[in-house]
Amino acid sequence: MKAVQVVGYGQRLRMADIPVPRVTGPHDVIVRIGGAGVCRTDLHILEGQWAGKSGVALPYTIGHENAGWVHAVGSAVTNVAEGDKVIVHPLITCGLCRACRAGDDVHCDSSQFPGIDTAGGYAEYLKTSARSLVRIDGSLEPSDVAALADAGLTAYHAAAKAARRLRPGDRCVVIGAGGLGHIGVQVLKALTAAEIVVVDRNPDAVDLAVSIGADRGVVADGSQVERVRELTGGQGAEAVIDFVGEGGSTRDGVGMLRRAGDYHVVGYGENLDIPTIDVISAEINFIGNLVGSYNDLCELMVLAAQGRVRLHTAKYPLDRFQDALDDLENGRIRGRAVLTP
Amino acid sequence: MKAVQVVGYGQRLRMADIPVPRVTGPHDVIVRIGGAGVCRTDLHILEGQWAGKSGVALPYTIGHENAGWVHAVGSAVTNVAEGDKVIVHPLITCGLCRACRAGDDVHCDSSQFPGIDTAGGYAEYLKTSARSLVRIDGSLEPSDVAALADAGLTAYHAAAKAARRLRPGDRCVVIGAGGLGHIGVQVLKALTAAEIVVVDRNPDAVDLAVSIGADRGVVADGSQVERVRELTGGQGAEAVIDFVGEGGSTRDGVGMLRRAGDYHVVGYGENLDIPTIDVISAEINFIGNLVGSYNDLCELMVLAAQGRVRLHTAKYPLDRFQDALDDLENGRIRGRAVLTP
Amino acid sequence: MKAVQVVGYGQRLRMADIPVPRVTGPHDVIVRIGGAGVCRTDLHILEGQWAGKSGVALPYTIGHENAGWVHAVGSAVTNVAEGDKVIVHPLITCGLCRACRAGDDVHCDSSQFPGIDTAGGYAEYLKTSARSLVRIDGSLEPSDVAALADAGLTAYHAAAKAARRLRPGDRCVVIGAGGLGHIGVQVLKALTAAEIVVVDRNPDAVDLAVSIGADRGVVADGSQVERVRELTGGQGAEAVIDFVGEGGSTRDGVGMLRRAGDYHVVGYGENLDIPTIDVISAEINFIGNLVGSYNDLCELMVLAAQGRVRLHTAKYPLDRFQDALDDLENGRIRGRAVLTP
Amino acid sequence: MKAVQVVGYGQRLRMADIPVPRVTGPHDVIVRIGGAGVCRTDLHILEGQWAGKSGVALPYTIGHENAGWVHAVGSAVTNVAEGDKVIVHPLITCGLCRACRAGDDVHCDSSQFPGIDTAGGYAEYLKTSARSLVRIDGSLEPSDVAALADAGLTAYHAAAKAARRLRPGDRCVVIGAGGLGHIGVQVLKALTAAEIVVVDRNPDAVDLAVSIGADRGVVADGSQVERVRELTGGQGAEAVIDFVGEGGSTRDGVGMLRRAGDYHVVGYGENLDIPTIDVISAEINFIGNLVGSYNDLCELMVLAAQGRVRLHTAKYPLDRFQDALDDLENGRIRGRAVLTP
Repeated sequence: MKAVQVVGYGQRLRMADIPVPRVTGPHDVIVRIGGAGVCRTDLHILEGQWAGKSGVALPYTIGHENAGWVHAVGSAVTNVAEGDKVIVHPLITCGLCRACRAGDDVHCDSSQFPGIDTAGGYAEYLKTSARSLVRIDGSLEPSDVAALADAGLTAYHAAAKAARRLRPGDRCVVIGAGGLGHIGVQVLKALTAAEIVVVDRNPDAVDLAVSIGADRGVVADGSQVERVRELTGGQGAEAVIDFVGEGGSTRDGVGMLRRAGDYHVVGYGENLDIPTIDVISAEINFIGNLVGSYNDLCELMVLAAQGRVRLHTAKYPLDRFQDALDDLENGRIRGRAVLTP
Repeated sequence: MKAVQVVGYGQRLRMADIPVPRVTGPHDVIVRIGGAGVCRTDLHILEGQWAGKSGVALPYTIGHENAGWVHAVGSAVTNVAEGDKVIVHPLITCGLCRACRAGDDVHCDSSQFPGIDTAGGYAEYLKTSARSLVRIDGSLEPSDVAALADAGLTAYHAAAKAARRLRPGDRCVVIGAGGLGHIGVQVLKALTAAEIVVVDRNPDAVDLAVSIGADRGVVADGSQVERVRELTGGQGAEAVIDFVGEGGSTRDGVGMLRRAGDYHVVGYGENLDIPTIDVISAEINFIGNLVGSYNDLCELMVLAAQGRVRLHTAKYPLDRFQDALDDLENGRIRGRAVLTP
Repeated sequence: MKAVQVVGYGQRLRMADIPVPRVTGPHDVIVRIGGAGVCRTDLHILEGQWAGKSGVALPYTIGHENAGWVHAVGSAVTNVAEGDKVIVHPLITCGLCRACRAGDDVHCDSSQFPGIDTAGGYAEYLKTSARSLVRIDGSLEPSDVAALADAGLTAYHAAAKAARRLRPGDRCVVIGAGGLGHIGVQVLKALTAAEIVVVDRNPDAVDLAVSIGADRGVVADGSQVERVRELTGGQGAEAVIDFVGEGGSTRDGVGMLRRAGDYHVVGYGENLDIPTIDVISAEINFIGNLVGSYNDLCELMVLAAQGRVRLHTAKYPLDRFQDALDDLENGRIRGRAVLTP
Repeated sequence: MKAVQVVGYGQRLRMADIPVPRVTGPHDVIVRIGGAGVCRTDLHILEGQWAGKSGVALPYTIGHENAGWVHAVGSAVTNVAEGDKVIVHPLITCGLCRACRAGDDVHCDSSQFPGIDTAGGYAEYLKTSARSLVRIDGSLEPSDVAALADAGLTAYHAAAKAARRLRPGDRCVVIGAGGLGHIGVQVLKALTAAEIVVVDRNPDAVDLAVSIGADRGVVADGSQVERVRELTGGQGAEAVIDFVGEGGSTRDGVGMLRRAGDYHVVGYGENLDIPTIDVISAEINFIGNLVGSYNDLCELMVLAAQGRVRLHTAKYPLDRFQDALDDLENGRIRGRAVLTP
């Protein structure tokens, strides 16, 4: 089959012809790829940023946001069958450790991450586990939802966690109105009556966020902290979800947070650097957010099927993978790029 | 009456003769002081560290950890009566704002803090509000529990919050085995079956902590992060309560924390300075902790009456206030110093 | 002033001329009534059903769903001022007991209930407490929101509690599409993405519920349990909110509930009569619901100001109180009847 | 191997010689039995009470409380190995349904229950799944902990759930001081500082409960509701855990419950029969409790290894199964009977 592989760090991806993966274990599932999201992390992998962490041996197939159709299943697989339309949770988890047994499978003691530390989905077929597959509604297409498998799932996880503490009359600031931020706004809109305030440097992104449900938009032109404090009666917001995490966003975001508020860290890059006296005197919390659980992905697919969460995608045939990466790198993608068969 | 007052920053406290406070509002309560805790914050006030934040006019009476007997009550006071033995919650709160109405009175929109921004308890009498008074069990003496009013309440608040997420088999690291740490260990022991690991630079403090309930003691001699990781099977603890917050304790403490763990910030001084990628990749949380609520203080007094929380105190007559401060400053106090009538 | 009073059980209400209430305590507030909801409980009071429970001395002024303008305030009142537009929480609470201090003021150890056990709002003026007043948005009129003070607040409380456990993909059955049910549907719609299934005997009420946000409507014609089970894949709903509580609704409702589901009891009349083996083998919960807290009322007023919760009202001048009661008794009211000045 | 089987309802169990079970699926595990608890449910099975519900084909091997050593494992088993000392969770669960993925494996969509609907542990070997096995501490013996696998796990589940809402100063009533009640008292003691009040008809059982940690004991001689109300200041307890569920215990128990309290239903037999007006006016909750989850069992084994939960057992060689059943039926067992190899 065709597969797009990392052959060396600092080098371009290369299309290879490799064997179709086969079922070898009882839980194995082979998925025929219908869509593979192209993510900024893929660029970072090529730059070598993940080489040490993943320890993956080259060459290997990249791509960690996948959806498609079940092609073959192992002997112990009962939850999906050949032909099922599925989205692929990005982690392969053991199902037996304490975290898995608590529903917190993201913290599995021995997980794998296809596309990062084992073969991913820039290919015709992907090998994963029964535990990673969510059947999707008939109305949804794999290529439309593939990019929700990781980026969207992360946004859902953070926004749903924030929503659990938000009440009518509360305010939630969303920093960053890019791909994750747009999902976050739609999720908040579906799950809470709190007022949503979006902050971004790009006025067009702010406008788009407002058009899909944000109650207020603030352009980050230097006055953003002051503006948010004005919009929140001088007190700050009960929650901030920071999808940026660099360029000073954490310092700004803390300035927008109310006493006893929750600061959700999602985007990353800079250090969180804050005096402990400020943490305790305002009694604020910093909440880490990684990708969502399997059940989170099921819930996100419900919202997608209901039309409450939509993602704009730019589709490229697998062969044109380099165009997709180039367009991403050069800021020419609105929404997410997805590779299709 | 006698009252010990701040007359100038950088100067010594001075004993003054001032009028006994009187009931003027419907909720006012005058408490005859039975014990006033001497706290490191009192030293910081004298150094002028709080001058800007509190904005208090000098001279004023210091002392924010108070207990005693009700001396006089306003017309609308129904929860205490003259002669009642009481401990005084450190804040005077409004009872009407959203935070007060949610039981989160510590975040009251318009609170006062006797001993910090208005007259405190280094005196014969203190004026406070009905909302700040907790009647204590007949078996408890004001001078024995006074220091629980603020330091102990803070430790209770953090330990009880941590305990709500701890399960049998989980581990909780307590950094700092001083006054707050000792209360924290006793509270954890009363509220959870989790294993308690105490870390402190002082071997005697570690031993004392183990003698009152800690399951493990680790002397912070440079190997403390490694030792805690060993004691937790290489994975770190589900919760860390940091009563120190300076001298590198936050960096160490994060190194002791397990994936998805909670880091409770209580002590302060240094900056929390941590890469956002570490916050999100381990999905850890930093939880701010201020003093406890009114109901927290009630619960702590239950534990004190049951003998589950005990605090060693060194008592000084009010006239010897300077000795108490000197002994505190010079590290000669074991437990807490308390001024008595 | 004019006041409509209970003069004897089994007798008609009578209009009286009594003195305007006056501020006597520091927290007292006199409200000029702008709207007083007419509730089925008022009919029950006249029938004498509450005589034993309330122990109120006759004659007294009835009316427990009130809104209006602040007319006069006691010396310690800081949260409202003369002229403020307000809705009145139905309970006067102490603010000092453990329940009040936990935000659970509905379980105050020593509350009063104007209109039930002391003078209510079928009058020109009402005496209440500062703790009972919520300022409402400028866009809302007292006569439009008065009926939300008790009936609406109860529905909000139950629906918001249910919503906290509902996730996308879950189903919530609402039994009873009358006044409370309609508020409940709107609240669920605002706070959760769960699918809402409304059940009522009246096809028009079901249609109306669907038009304001219910996802599915089921007419209770004898096949309702079977229909709900079909709509929930044979498994039942994760939550049932029963606004009826009589005529067999609890037996039906339990039949609609999924394993590990929550059954919210709001309406009352019949006995909950269920084998304990069914409670434990399906591990279901029965959750009692009384009126909401003060903060619940604040949140409901936010939803009302946002236009997410609307209540149809039929207005009657105070003098025509008998017409309102007659129309209610004879089923001629759509929504709620409200007395106006 | 030897196996004790149900050969007909209303008949005695019979010892049979059947083949040792073998690994056939990838997750299968064969356990060599070290202890099999003898439970009142086993008597009910023989009486035929479970025939309809379980649908099991006769003859089959009984016994649902099992512990022992791993004898053989399937190809996909990674969490246990031959020779491991284990306790067996009573359910075999799928690991793939939404409940399993949420950590709520007890509500698995397609579980099996060895000893009830498939071959159990009154035998030399038992076939179960990797997902059902918890390795136990070296200090624990299978025959000592076997009876914790179901009865103890149920008590743990209910007591731990209750403990999550209990605060110092709260009271928890435990109705029934038999096997489950004793475990419940020990678990509450380990997890909460709330006051524990035990109620039982048998004065010796009450004394024993007090000796292992209950703060108060009440003999159910007709005055028990009144006594508990006295012990709780006339208000009732914040929680009641009812391990009896018959003979009027639910009516009594509700009389012991405070406003806003939680009533945990564990024992069963009679109907819960309570006016809905009482449910809503006191706003009380009825919480169903089934057996605990896999993680609950892990936590219980931690408490057992710490010596905080101990169960008195009477051991019988497997061949003497009839003596064990007879002694149980005739009330001659203190604690639990356990069959050993």
